[in-house]
Amino acid sequence: MANGGPEIEQLILLLARLPGLGPRSARRAVLQLIKKKEQLMIPLSAALDRAVAAVTVCETCGNVDTRSPCHICADPRRDNGLLIVVEDVADLWALERAGVGAVKYHVLGGVLSPLDGVGPDDLSIDALLRRGPEFSEIVLAVNATVEGQTTAHYITDRLAPSGVKITRLAHGVPVGGELDYLDEGTLSQALKARTAL
Amino acid sequence: MANGGPEIEQLILLLARLPGLGPRSARRAVLQLIKKKEQLMIPLSAALDRAVAAVTVCETCGNVDTRSPCHICADPRRDNGLLIVVEDVADLWALERAGVGAVKYHVLGGVLSPLDGVGPDDLSIDALLRRGPEFSEIVLAVNATVEGQTTAHYITDRLAPSGVKITRLAHGVPVGGELDYLDEGTLSQALKARTAL
Repeated sequence: MANGGPEIEQLILLLARLPGLGPRSARRAVLQLIKKKEQLMIPLSAALDRAVAAVTVCETCGNVDTRSPCHICADPRRDNGLLIVVEDVADLWALERAGVGAVKYHVLGGVLSPLDGVGPDDLSIDALLRRGPEFSEIVLAVNATVEGQTTAHYITDRLAPSGVKITRLAHGVPVGGELDYLDEGTLSQALKARTAL
Repeated sequence: MANGGPEIEQLILLLARLPGLGPRSARRAVLQLIKKKEQLMIPLSAALDRAVAAVTVCETCGNVDTRSPCHICADPRRDNGLLIVVEDVADLWALERAGVGAVKYHVLGGVLSPLDGVGPDDLSIDALLRRGPEFSEIVLAVNATVEGQTTAHYITDRLAPSGVKITRLAHGVPVGGELDYLDEGTLSQALKARTAL
């Protein structure tokens, strides 16, 4: 081991597996950790220990939290108005950061993808079919990819008998975006869905 | 806390302080950790615990390792021929990865920088003056910055009375580098130091 001891080498290897870090930046991160042992390394070690012990998946919606039901499902200010269906916990967090209001969520845990062997039983779709009809509207906030749209169609078909209102996110020009850089699909959708000023 | 529990939020804040990670990528990293709890989060937590307990700074050269003297200083195959003086442990690791051979190192812990209030007493220069004369040659492998070169001059002056041979790394065209992208300083140095084919 060139870089001082198996403990350090092991830490570099594990950090390099995080998204956004490679072997080189993991090595830089470990050096930073060692340099700031008191302010960074020891707190990080403790925070990780606590998170390992505390983190759990919400049995109702699939969010990750330190309790189940999660703080969103347990929030009394959120009623059963809007249920937003997302692919991933990251999408749920993104919507919460955007401050979309007193809504609830359902995390699918992925999208239908026959090529990758992901079928309806691999996603949290049965739970959605049970939960969905309790809400006045279900927003399918899946990604605007082929798999995402396939999944949205599948869920719409399965939920149709319950009669619940189903919507999807609007397509259009991103706020702050320049038309010049947008693809044709988005532009034509934005024109079709134009609104009065 | 929007993103599920203070334990998770705390972990994101600490990871965001690593070089190469910001708030957004730290959040992605934490989600990845939670998703791969068994394969990644628990091993990382354990590796960090072990590293916190084991990591120490070598009293001889300033390298970080799990023992002092470090495995480089303690290596019987490395004699007191070349002593390579570097600013930082990262530079030492980079030279070791380059396979520079059976050399020893001395980590200064920074460079002289009056504007930042870094003087000779803040660096490991006294230890270098004691150790240096035991070697047959000292290579000042500091960065080719103004501060690095100032530090090199200062060390050269202080080591002069001992009579030890002092050298620096060659300047020139990086291997695989294109002349077109090189700055004029490097090019003129490379021409001055041209070698026979």
